[in-house]
Amino acid sequence: MMKRTAYSLKDIAARFGGSVQGDSAVLISQIATLDSAQSHQIAFLANSKYRAQLDKTSAGAVILGAADADATTRPRIVCDNPYAYFAKLSAFLNPLPVAVAGIHASAVIGEGAVISPGVQIDAHVVIGEGAHIGANSVIMSGCNIGAGVVIGENARLYPRVVIYHDCVLGNNLIAHSGVVIGADGFGIAMEEGRWLKIPQIGRVVIGDDVEIGANTTIDRGALDDTVIEDDVKLDNQIQIAHNVRVGAHTAIAGCVGIAGSANIGRYCRIGGSAGILGHLQIADYVEVSSFTLVGKSIRERGSYCGIFPFSKTQTWRKNAAHVRHLDEMADRIKQLEQQIELLKK
Amino acid sequence: MMKRTAYSLKDIAARFGGSVQGDSAVLISQIATLDSAQSHQIAFLANSKYRAQLDKTSAGAVILGAADADATTRPRIVCDNPYAYFAKLSAFLNPLPVAVAGIHASAVIGEGAVISPGVQIDAHVVIGEGAHIGANSVIMSGCNIGAGVVIGENARLYPRVVIYHDCVLGNNLIAHSGVVIGADGFGIAMEEGRWLKIPQIGRVVIGDDVEIGANTTIDRGALDDTVIEDDVKLDNQIQIAHNVRVGAHTAIAGCVGIAGSANIGRYCRIGGSAGILGHLQIADYVEVSSFTLVGKSIRERGSYCGIFPFSKTQTWRKNAAHVRHLDEMADRIKQLEQQIELLKK
Amino acid sequence: MMKRTAYSLKDIAARFGGSVQGDSAVLISQIATLDSAQSHQIAFLANSKYRAQLDKTSAGAVILGAADADATTRPRIVCDNPYAYFAKLSAFLNPLPVAVAGIHASAVIGEGAVISPGVQIDAHVVIGEGAHIGANSVIMSGCNIGAGVVIGENARLYPRVVIYHDCVLGNNLIAHSGVVIGADGFGIAMEEGRWLKIPQIGRVVIGDDVEIGANTTIDRGALDDTVIEDDVKLDNQIQIAHNVRVGAHTAIAGCVGIAGSANIGRYCRIGGSAGILGHLQIADYVEVSSFTLVGKSIRERGSYCGIFPFSKTQTWRKNAAHVRHLDEMADRIKQLEQQIELLKK
Repeated sequence: MMKRTAYSLKDIAARFGGSVQGDSAVLISQIATLDSAQSHQIAFLANSKYRAQLDKTSAGAVILGAADADATTRPRIVCDNPYAYFAKLSAFLNPLPVAVAGIHASAVIGEGAVISPGVQIDAHVVIGEGAHIGANSVIMSGCNIGAGVVIGENARLYPRVVIYHDCVLGNNLIAHSGVVIGADGFGIAMEEGRWLKIPQIGRVVIGDDVEIGANTTIDRGALDDTVIEDDVKLDNQIQIAHNVRVGAHTAIAGCVGIAGSANIGRYCRIGGSAGILGHLQIADYVEVSSFTLVGKSIRERGSYCGIFPFSKTQTWRKNAAHVRHLDEMADRIKQLEQQIELLKK
Repeated sequence: MMKRTAYSLKDIAARFGGSVQGDSAVLISQIATLDSAQSHQIAFLANSKYRAQLDKTSAGAVILGAADADATTRPRIVCDNPYAYFAKLSAFLNPLPVAVAGIHASAVIGEGAVISPGVQIDAHVVIGEGAHIGANSVIMSGCNIGAGVVIGENARLYPRVVIYHDCVLGNNLIAHSGVVIGADGFGIAMEEGRWLKIPQIGRVVIGDDVEIGANTTIDRGALDDTVIEDDVKLDNQIQIAHNVRVGAHTAIAGCVGIAGSANIGRYCRIGGSAGILGHLQIADYVEVSSFTLVGKSIRERGSYCGIFPFSKTQTWRKNAAHVRHLDEMADRIKQLEQQIELLKK
Repeated sequence: MMKRTAYSLKDIAARFGGSVQGDSAVLISQIATLDSAQSHQIAFLANSKYRAQLDKTSAGAVILGAADADATTRPRIVCDNPYAYFAKLSAFLNPLPVAVAGIHASAVIGEGAVISPGVQIDAHVVIGEGAHIGANSVIMSGCNIGAGVVIGENARLYPRVVIYHDCVLGNNLIAHSGVVIGADGFGIAMEEGRWLKIPQIGRVVIGDDVEIGANTTIDRGALDDTVIEDDVKLDNQIQIAHNVRVGAHTAIAGCVGIAGSANIGRYCRIGGSAGILGHLQIADYVEVSSFTLVGKSIRERGSYCGIFPFSKTQTWRKNAAHVRHLDEMADRIKQLEQQIELLKK
């Protein structure tokens, strides 16, 4: 392990803001949880609900909000948004390895490909003809970049990412291992009892500052493009079908499936394993709960849910059987109401 | 970009049928949507419901059905199945690159492997001992073909497909990046508090004209084989467990999970993120909605669904709580009915 | 195909226990199902419910429990746990290929990496700086092992597995193709309308005797580690988020998603496509049905379920509509009850 540099609370506040309370000379070299932090580490309290953890922490210092400033006597940085502060400080203390410019001898670079200055291309990478890799990007081992692909600056492709031909990816892209961008969308037409394949001639176009989790797949458009806008964050194992648009700043948790031509707004948050059917419109600032299937367009911002509540299997069996008879149940209630009206007369 | 060849409507109709109305000399070089098509492009109207789009299109020509033939004055091809027509014309205008015969220097070919004439094997491919690759197939970079695998003619494996040993794949297979065929099925037996692994000694056997989407996995059989019949179309991130059979011409959308030994009929359509439990029988021509779990065999063709309807989270909270009390609710209705009967007497 | 060795029932019982009934000299060289077994194969009956299949089998011998010992006159091995017996015998008859020690010329081994005796490293593998590969492990083609990774003895990584830096994997690990271990967890913080990335500085730590199915992903911890304990069995396409703990001997079926910091007990069984929300506690010996979302902690062992029952789409439409009005329905029942009370008086 490399030796870590330590910074005083005073240094840290000078860099990232916030006010120091307690000993500002305390030296910090890493971030940790309240539970596990030691004297050279700084922890954070993002939610007042977990205040009690402050009592037991051995952290050298704590990041917290004004409301919790007096909940500990440890050295601390008081700031508006402790979670964001933690994110920024952690990024500072844990920088990603810088690109080491160069092309590994085993990489295969297609004719006419442009490898910009500062680019790192690792072992067994394949870059297609005419592809363009932006400055200081890192293409790790075994990645496959198709012909004509354009990748922005400071991109980071972890091992074994595949980008199909002609896709366009923005600056600062992070794509984790197993990501597949630009595979054919699922387009088939039935004729005389057999399927015909519909060529998928659109591309995937991805904005700046996008992160894509491991084994997530984003299909190329059938005719027009599939579009992922700036600052979209995608977790692992998400499936985005052809011609979907995901609006800027939207975050999508793992295992979500989005069907073809769905149009998702900006600043949405989609919970894990949720689904969105094809051709739907989702407004900006919509939150969808985990495991919810969105089967109609959502025109109004807000939080949406559709989950069958779980219970002990025995209980579930008793209750679930009635779901198949709700219509009959509703009829019986109506009849009861009518009969009561008659009786009352 | 390559220069595209243009064809007159007359040429196109001579090749693919349909009758031309309007100027049959119009030159067409590409397909596009009604929305985005330009004068050298042909669009299509597959559903009369979208007729209004015809008014605004700038397409050089349109493919449509007889019922819509008079809905535009643009040059047009009138045919029985506009969607299939579009598929065939698009395939003609957008042919896949032809295999460039040859084996890249970095590929590793096992002893006794048979590489048929016309086969293209790209960089960093590994072909196992005794594997057989059919004529004119394309094995793109980083694919791994296990020992004893048989692949038919004109197959197309995109980068980083893995086929485990002894699997058999038909002609015209398309397998997208990240596909894994023939990994061990999930077979374990508990003994004295520990799991024993059950060797998976069956294979995966895949018919002709099958397409498999990115990151889809198909496990090898435990004892007998897992079977995917001709003309099956699988979208991305589908999981097919050991000893499943998928009948010919069935199409399965993304993220579907099919448990072990399920037997799915021919011409079925399974919606995205649906699930089918193990050992079930699904008849031919069954449609399963997205997100539906099929928990019992389906003996009769038709359309099946089981989705909790979504709503605003606030509304959902009020309603969902009652799901856990449906049995009690049903009891209370029964009691009400009995009491009313008594009162009526 | 290699020639198989045959063993007499007597030999087999000497090795694995059980009592032989009928001709103990029968020679067996492979396992098969009751349906497909031939005279040189042994089949098994793990569940008395399938007894009828004994009548039609052509198996040379059968493994079964005492309760079924007289249900056939074929040569047979009677034992306590026929399924476990079958697992052990099959493992004996179908041993995995032994590691062939050596490093393929195309593999790239980082500085300071330790490759223990007996290790097999196939083509196009990349081993990072300072990684440690335990004795007799097999790293198949195209795997990528990050810097500082520790892998135990007798591990088996199928082609194109990716392990990110610093993860620790136990002995006898089996990881199937497309597995990604140690990618960044999904950690983001919103500040002024943009997402900040939270560095993921924990690791993944995996015990002994773990198997991980194709295309499954296990994210590294945000600050502390993600932990998979001994003898955990994971099927394909499972997503395990950062800081999850999966207790020893737990088995998880395909396509399950487990959100961040969930803590799952020992000896649990999670059905396919189920989900577990973040920060929940699941007790030991909990069974969760396929497709069930666990939205609250489970403190008590037992079986849990939450699935919307499927039906013909027509029927579903009628019933599902009422789910959105259950609260109103409950109100109407209460009113009916009150009115009946009044009428009775």
